[in-house]
Order: sequence, then C-alpha cells, then structure tokens
Amino acid sequence: MNALRHTISLVSLGTFQLVRRTRGPHARGFLLGTGLGLASFSAVTYAHSAEAVNPKVNGVQMDTSRFMAEPITDSKALLGDKENMRHRMEILIMEIQAEFCRALEAEENCGQKFKVDRWERPEGGGGITCVLQDGDVFEKAGVNISVVTGSLPPAAVQQMRARGKNLKEGTSLPFFASGVSAVIHPRNPHVPTIHFNYRYFEVETAKGEKQWWFGGGTDLTPYYLCEKDASHFHQTLKSACDEHDATYYPRFKKWCDDYFRIKHRNESRGIGGIFFDDIDSPNQTAAFNFVSSCARAVIPSYVPLVRKHKNREYGNNERQWQLLRRGRYVEFNLIYDRGTKFGLYTPGARYESILMSLPLHARWEYMHEPKSQSEEGKLMKVLKNPKDWV
Amino acid sequence: MNALRHTISLVSLGTFQLVRRTRGPHARGFLLGTGLGLASFSAVTYAHSAEAVNPKVNGVQMDTSRFMAEPITDSKALLGDKENMRHRMEILIMEIQAEFCRALEAEENCGQKFKVDRWERPEGGGGITCVLQDGDVFEKAGVNISVVTGSLPPAAVQQMRARGKNLKEGTSLPFFASGVSAVIHPRNPHVPTIHFNYRYFEVETAKGEKQWWFGGGTDLTPYYLCEKDASHFHQTLKSACDEHDATYYPRFKKWCDDYFRIKHRNESRGIGGIFFDDIDSPNQTAAFNFVSSCARAVIPSYVPLVRKHKNREYGNNERQWQLLRRGRYVEFNLIYDRGTKFGLYTPGARYESILMSLPLHARWEYMHEPKSQSEEGKLMKVLKNPKDWV
Repeated sequence: MNALRHTISLVSLGTFQLVRRTRGPHARGFLLGTGLGLASFSAVTYAHSAEAVNPKVNGVQMDTSRFMAEPITDSKALLGDKENMRHRMEILIMEIQAEFCRALEAEENCGQKFKVDRWERPEGGGGITCVLQDGDVFEKAGVNISVVTGSLPPAAVQQMRARGKNLKEGTSLPFFASGVSAVIHPRNPHVPTIHFNYRYFEVETAKGEKQWWFGGGTDLTPYYLCEKDASHFHQTLKSACDEHDATYYPRFKKWCDDYFRIKHRNESRGIGGIFFDDIDSPNQTAAFNFVSSCARAVIPSYVPLVRKHKNREYGNNERQWQLLRRGRYVEFNLIYDRGTKFGLYTPGARYESILMSLPLHARWEYMHEPKSQSEEGKLMKVLKNPKDWV
Repeated sequence: MNALRHTISLVSLGTFQLVRRTRGPHARGFLLGTGLGLASFSAVTYAHSAEAVNPKVNGVQMDTSRFMAEPITDSKALLGDKENMRHRMEILIMEIQAEFCRALEAEENCGQKFKVDRWERPEGGGGITCVLQDGDVFEKAGVNISVVTGSLPPAAVQQMRARGKNLKEGTSLPFFASGVSAVIHPRNPHVPTIHFNYRYFEVETAKGEKQWWFGGGTDLTPYYLCEKDASHFHQTLKSACDEHDATYYPRFKKWCDDYFRIKHRNESRGIGGIFFDDIDSPNQTAAFNFVSSCARAVIPSYVPLVRKHKNREYGNNERQWQLLRRGRYVEFNLIYDRGTKFGLYTPGARYESILMSLPLHARWEYMHEPKSQSEEGKLMKVLKNPKDWV
C-alpha cells in the first residue's frame, strides 16, 4: 500500500533520523481520544530513497523530506487526492510534527535530536513517534502522529453514543482517526510543560453514512507562575480561535479548565489553554481551518517561553517542586485522561507511544503543602481557582 | 463517642508519636477495596492521658499504649463487647499496624520513626495513617488503618452486585468497613517492596439483614530477583494459609498473579503472594482467624529480607532500574487498583492516605528494555510469566 520496505535503514538521510526496529512487546497499538492511544500496530522500518521521499504525480512533486519520516499513507495517494480530508489532515499533522520537533531541537544547547519510530498496524495505518530524552533543555519530549483505520468495538461505540453521537448500538463500526499529540517536559523548572493534541475522526454509521468531527487543544503546566507568560500563551491561542469564531476561545478555555482537573485534589493540572471535541460545523473545511490555526499557534505560544527561561538558574528546591508537580501530571494522565485510558484499555495498545506523555522523573511526598506566600503557594492559588489570563 | 478531645498534644507519650493536625485540603475521606480508600473525614488530634490509654472496664485493663494512636472506637466500648467482630477486627488491625511499624523502625539504622496522623470523619469512624519518609532504609513506608461506617452509594452497591452480592439495586445501603493497608518502598534496590491489606466489610441489605466478608492479601515486588527470598516469602504465606484450608494458598496465589497484572504491558507488578476477597465461610470466627494468620505472617515473610539486603552495595544502574520499576508500580496503582480507583473517585476522599502507596520517586523512560541475560532481564522473565515458588 505504500513505498515502505521491510528493511532497515540506519543511515540518516536528509531530515530522517534513526529509525528503530520496534518489535516484540511493542508490536501492537491503537489511537483515539485526547492522548491518542495507539493499537494493534506492527512496527516496520523502511528503505529511504529519493523516489519515495519526493514522489511525482502528474509532474507535481511533494517534498516529504521535510517530515520526520515518510507519511503513513503512500505519498502518491496523498498527493493524488488533495481534497480528501483524510489526506489534508495527514499532511497537516506531518507538518506540525516536523515543525515542532525542529523548533524544539533548535532550543537544545548541545544539539540533541529527536529519535524517530515509525510503525504500522496490520489492521490499517500506523504512526510516527518522535522522542527526545535527556536533552539539556528538554528532559523528555514526545511528539506523536498517527493515522489509523479499523473497527470500533461496541464498547467504544457506546461511549460515543453517550457523548451524543447518533450511532447504532451493540455493533462494531468502521472508523478512521488521525492526529498529532505532544507532551514536552523541560529540565529547567522555570520552563513550563506543554501538551497539545489535534485530531480528526470519521466513523461509518450502520446506514453506511459517514460522521466526522475534529477535536483537540493546547494547555500549559508551569511549575512557577509567570503571569506575563500565562497571558502570552492564552492570548496566542485566543487569537487563533478568534480568526474563526469569537465564541470559541471563551468556550474552549472553560472546557479546558474543566477537563484538566485533578478531581481528588480539587486542583488543575496547569493553567489551562483550550480544549474542544466534536467540532463538525460550520462545514468540514472551516472546521479543518480552525484546527490548523490552533495547531500552528503552538510554536509561537510556547517556544518564546522556552527561550526566555531555559538558561535561568535554579536549585534543588525548585527541582523537587517540579518533580512533585510532575507526580500530579502522572496522576491526571493515568487516572483521568480519556485518551490514555481508552488507549491502555485497548488490548495490544502501543503503550510506549501512549505513555511517552509521562515525565522522566516524578515524586510523591506525603502531606506536602507549600507555604501560601511562597512562589509555589502562588502557583497553587491559580491551580485551585483557574483565572482568566486575557 | 470516644475519649478524643480537640486539642493538640505535641508531646510523645509512651509509644505515641507526633500527631499532626490535618485540615484544609486533607479534610475529608473514605475507605474500601484493595488499597483502602478513605473518605469524608475530618482530622482531629487528641489529648493523651493515662485514663484514655488504659481504660478499665469491670476491672479489666486494655493497654492501648502499644498502638500507634488511640483506637478509632472508644476503648471502653472496644473492651466492653469483645465478641463483636467489628471490635475484634479493630483490635487486630491496630495490633498489626503497631507491630509492623515497630518492626520497620527497628531496621532503620539512624532511628527514623513513623509520623502518625489520626483522623475522624463526621459520617462515622476514622483512621490512623503512619508514614515514614526519607529514612535511611525506607525511602517511603506507609501503614494505614481505618474503621468507617456510612452509606454506600448506589454505584458502589451496583459494583458489589456485579461481584455476586445479593443487594438491592438502585439504593444506598449502610455499611461498615475496617482494614489495615501498607506499602513499603525501601531505598536499597536489593530490598523488595511489600504491600499488604486485610479488611472486614459489613453491609446491610434492603431487608435489614447483615452481609459480611473479609478480603486481603500480601504481595512482594522485588527489583532484583533472589529466588531464595521469593521461596521464603511464598512459603511463609502458604504456611499461614495451610493452617486453615489446604486449597487457600494455590487459589489465592493464582488470584494474586491475576490481580496484580499490568495488562497494557503484559507483565506482573511483582512476584505475587496471596490475594482474596469475599471470604465468608466456613464461619465468621474461622474466617477472622484465617485473616489474622495472614496478617501475622507479614513480618516473618518480609523483615528477614530487609535485614539481609538493606546494607548491600549498589550503584546508579541499580537505582535507575528501581525507579523504572517504581514507575510500573505507579501505573498499576493508578490505572488498575480497585481500592485506589474507588477511593479517588469518591468525592472528598482523603487522597493523602490513598496515595501514600506511591513511591517517593519514579521514572519513565521511552522504550527501555533490559538485556535478557542481565539481572534486570531475569526479573522481567518471571514478571512476564509468573511461576510457582514453593
């Protein structure tokens, strides 16, 4: 179905980096929801050639060398039907993945690069998982895309019905899902963690009709509060939303605050951002354009904050506080995050891609409570009571 | 209802140690299931007097100074009706908690002691949470008891019906639960982590009848496999079981292997032990005696392993591997453990007591896989395929 071959290329060509053969315990996967789970995949590596990278269709050339790896869908097919929303979304997420990875690599002081795992699943589709671990600026950064087709099990159909989707009960339904998902944990406690995820979903109803929708969001998790940063971050997201619908930012900002709540602690994971799902209006192209704007706002919302704080001095106290907050991040992701839960409960999930969102290190201390007047206490105040930043 | 007073005693009297006033974010809780969740509590501290500690009923004296704090139920009431199973269980868990805490404290090389939090819940009952953090032998050790009464919400009733309990649907039911629960994370990677939990449950059916049952288990999570230790641990549990029913150990050993499975990784949390629930035969006293034997087997099953390995040398590699395995421990507890989930989903849960099971530090590395011939690889083999140890 595409130009991949089951051979190993250990040589980096152009922007393609190390592609690892992933087998055995990592040999299946699935993808949906917030965190984009990944299931039932079988990983392959591929031979890299100029022809595969830059295919020509009717004399038009597609430069896939700007991507982190070859697209999941055959490049010629991608280029052959550029109006197809599946293809438009795949090209978008490939671009977002590559641009974001490049932007982060540019911030590394010692040239650390992302490692790239490209995998396929026998049921259809696959993904590209890029991870930069133990960098001098980024302690753990994961940027994942996936493009999968398959059959949605009845339990998942039931979940979607509960969310208001008009789907037939008690049956499996063909689906298509694609998305980009990233979690970046920097080393310096003055640099916030960012998460984003943008996705497109199609499911075939019992009548053979197609339902489609978009979902996604971007949110920030600082360890120390810099109000100016928080305003910059939210303002950048707001501008992206306002281009499309003035009601989007306030609605999706609140949705984000509600979603990323660590309920047992009655505190938020971070200072929010935007979060939305089931976007299927006013029409498919307008919805896609909105999602594109949001995805393209990630770099300007975040990278300036990295650049500003990445070389600031910090001590052991700041590091310990960062690790405690990372423990809270783990709690949210493993207990509440819909995508993580959906992914992990799917038999044969590619857990390595799902759990790349977890930090390299986390800490849990019994009964830790920062003093209310401390910098840590100031952060806690806005985590307890989310506020408006723009 | 008991001898507690709402004043603070910061002076350690006899075996009583620091009792902290716990308020604010920690001011509610609930308890059930494996991990013994704790909800809707309001913490209090108490005045300590010889009379409260050693009450006399009809000239018979109860020496409560051997406990970590005053019992939850008034000592005179406890002593007044010693046939009552609620009272027998409370005395047992108080004894188990104190004996285990003392035994661990005795292993600390520099005299580190448990901190004691005693708390009550307005709906009825309370608990005692003992935590030793940052010791030289134990990095984080939590030993918790709770004795609570209240009303079981319909969703919890439904869960119990699904487990075969003959309870009326769609209604709240009065319940009583008590138990002891502990998780010990040592610092030296050659010393395994242990978890145990023994509990007694009563629920009133719609007809006003009382259903009761016991549950519990003990399991071991080594970072490096010592087959001799594994055999000693399992043999100690088997002997405790065999005193009561020769079918118990094989059944509960398998139940343990099935329960503590990290399904998305297709590996076990540790090398198992025993796990059981819904024990209501052959009669209440026999079931209680069985649970007592298991609980009393904890110290002989575990403390010799601590003593044997606590001063062994280790390097950074062993430490990093221990932290990775602790990440898996966090995954199991937050994703699968019934008690933790039940506790945390209960509004107002005392999350500090529920999450005391989490290690001080944990680590997640993308695509980490130890070499199969290494010591780490040898452990992985028995985690992938649980084996018989006796």
